[in-house]
Amino acid sequence: MADTPGREALQHVYVTILAGGSGTRLWPRSRHARPKQFLDLVGPRSMLVNTVQRVLPLVPLERINVLTGPEHAPLVAEQLPDLPPDNIMVEPSPKGTAPCLGLAALRLFRRTGRPDDVMISLHADHVVVKEDRFRTALRAAAAVARDGHIVTIGIIPAYPETGFGYIERAEPLPPAAGQEVYRVARFTEKPPLERARQFVESGRFFWNTGYFAWTLGDILGEFGRSLPDLYSRLQRVVPANGASPALDAWEGITPVTIDVGIMERAKDLAVIPCDLGWSDIGSWAALHDILPGDPQGNVVSEGTRHIGIDTSNCLVYGKDRLIATVGLEGMVVVDTGDALLILPKDRAQDVSALVRELRARGLEDLM
Amino acid sequence: MADTPGREALQHVYVTILAGGSGTRLWPRSRHARPKQFLDLVGPRSMLVNTVQRVLPLVPLERINVLTGPEHAPLVAEQLPDLPPDNIMVEPSPKGTAPCLGLAALRLFRRTGRPDDVMISLHADHVVVKEDRFRTALRAAAAVARDGHIVTIGIIPAYPETGFGYIERAEPLPPAAGQEVYRVARFTEKPPLERARQFVESGRFFWNTGYFAWTLGDILGEFGRSLPDLYSRLQRVVPANGASPALDAWEGITPVTIDVGIMERAKDLAVIPCDLGWSDIGSWAALHDILPGDPQGNVVSEGTRHIGIDTSNCLVYGKDRLIATVGLEGMVVVDTGDALLILPKDRAQDVSALVRELRARGLEDLM
Repeated sequence: MADTPGREALQHVYVTILAGGSGTRLWPRSRHARPKQFLDLVGPRSMLVNTVQRVLPLVPLERINVLTGPEHAPLVAEQLPDLPPDNIMVEPSPKGTAPCLGLAALRLFRRTGRPDDVMISLHADHVVVKEDRFRTALRAAAAVARDGHIVTIGIIPAYPETGFGYIERAEPLPPAAGQEVYRVARFTEKPPLERARQFVESGRFFWNTGYFAWTLGDILGEFGRSLPDLYSRLQRVVPANGASPALDAWEGITPVTIDVGIMERAKDLAVIPCDLGWSDIGSWAALHDILPGDPQGNVVSEGTRHIGIDTSNCLVYGKDRLIATVGLEGMVVVDTGDALLILPKDRAQDVSALVRELRARGLEDLM
Repeated sequence: MADTPGREALQHVYVTILAGGSGTRLWPRSRHARPKQFLDLVGPRSMLVNTVQRVLPLVPLERINVLTGPEHAPLVAEQLPDLPPDNIMVEPSPKGTAPCLGLAALRLFRRTGRPDDVMISLHADHVVVKEDRFRTALRAAAAVARDGHIVTIGIIPAYPETGFGYIERAEPLPPAAGQEVYRVARFTEKPPLERARQFVESGRFFWNTGYFAWTLGDILGEFGRSLPDLYSRLQRVVPANGASPALDAWEGITPVTIDVGIMERAKDLAVIPCDLGWSDIGSWAALHDILPGDPQGNVVSEGTRHIGIDTSNCLVYGKDRLIATVGLEGMVVVDTGDALLILPKDRAQDVSALVRELRARGLEDLM
């Protein structure tokens, strides 16, 4: 049964969507001026809008915040015209996920003043196919967070991916909203292939989505304990009692990720393992994998005119012009009007090298 | 030593350039409205203009005629503004090379009235790298034709091509302009691979270029003898003594090639075997083979912005947009603005199938 807005909305739960990325791995569609989260890569709406729609049955728009960089704040406002302007939180410069999430948590706390309020953090540029399960997982995460845990969402791995971090589970905690919940044994960095295989076979490791749930009191306590210098800087950036923010305090922050800065040292970590049809769309190959193809395994973007003879397992993202292919297997073809990318799926990770080459040749207008 | 215009120009020799083709094998650059011979596929000028430039040291423009269809006559005039308008000969509709060359020969004869004048016929859409040798071959051909032979230019085969017809030589004739000359034993159609291998190994077979030299009297005699119905129709289309041409006589012509209609039955055939760096550019693969590449074997058209990582033996024909490739080997990429073609070199012959598919889908505007 699908969730319905309002009927089962979570009380005192806020959602923060991180929309600050400027990835290059989906070049030439992803550009500095319009990175992945603002693109309609999957369906007619942008990934940011999809992310908001996905949580609206749980949390009204007034309690959804979007965190982004100053250059992309206008895009957020444009794509989410009904979002209250105060809910666009700007990180002055990129400092990694820990300062960014600390800033979001502290801002929320300054607004609500309630340490028991729950904050769920999500990424704006992921695909979730199984949306009902996703919302059930968030319900569970909110409940477990309210019980005093720092909660992570883990994905039951389908294969030994070496491009993700993993979360290892420890002993079970009581289920919530029908979901299994475990204490976290540890977070691990991206593993080599053999290690990833062992992870998958063990059944104890889950892909780290970077989705979290916590109470404001718990997470701010963790910041104060694990990253005291950062925490004091955040308090100058978001001061209490209407004092003037000191933005220079932000610039002095040493970049650090939430995994390294907080998670690896936090107590009472919990993980909720899920099967969500999830992808971080980390490459054109990942996008091809998540989208439904035709009987030949070809994925052709909406509106693209494609004629393929002996063409299979290809991803074809077109613009206005006809794309005609013969004898192609497992290729990615992306036409954006000003640039054209052609490469085999198994070289999809090399798009970053291409973008470096663009920079080296002074082709910033195409980045 | 290069030829110089005028100094050694051939007397009473006319060149007819066949520019009537509407091939589809170089789609999407070649289109019905602008087929291969009108494109700047090799260097900054069109192949037709290159063909004219190639013979100008031998024959002045006044003695060069271009034969084409009515739809392409304006293009000929545009690309060759100094060509006398009467030298654009229009074939009312495509009927194969025999009616076309018969028309050209009869028109010339009506103008000059001299059966001993020599006509050399060439194609407008071929590449000849060794231009001096080519002109030497034409000098020889004109001399041998004046001696009463129907002369063909053969190419010493570099490999067992199955896409060409072959000419088998018989006993030698006296050399001309330093060139070996042989009687022709027979013309053969495109051979299967094993047969083509035998041809190449024998040293007696040459690729049939479709270039000829003959006197007007000899060739019109052959038409009268081998294709009397066609010949009488041609005489109604190009009547003597200023009578009105009867174009309906042309429409009743049964299409036939010069090889089948004339050459297979003609007497006194001669062949001049040459090494000309010749290509009929019958496919994108053939074009790649004839053009000089970079150290990785990539051929990138003038003005194309291409970034290739691990890209080798590719042909990249671009338009305005950047073309970025990773991990491609032996691929053809052609961007014309309104269409994009991607296929492996060894599937280059399948472009015709693509064009049939365009027709099936009603995409005539792209043909």
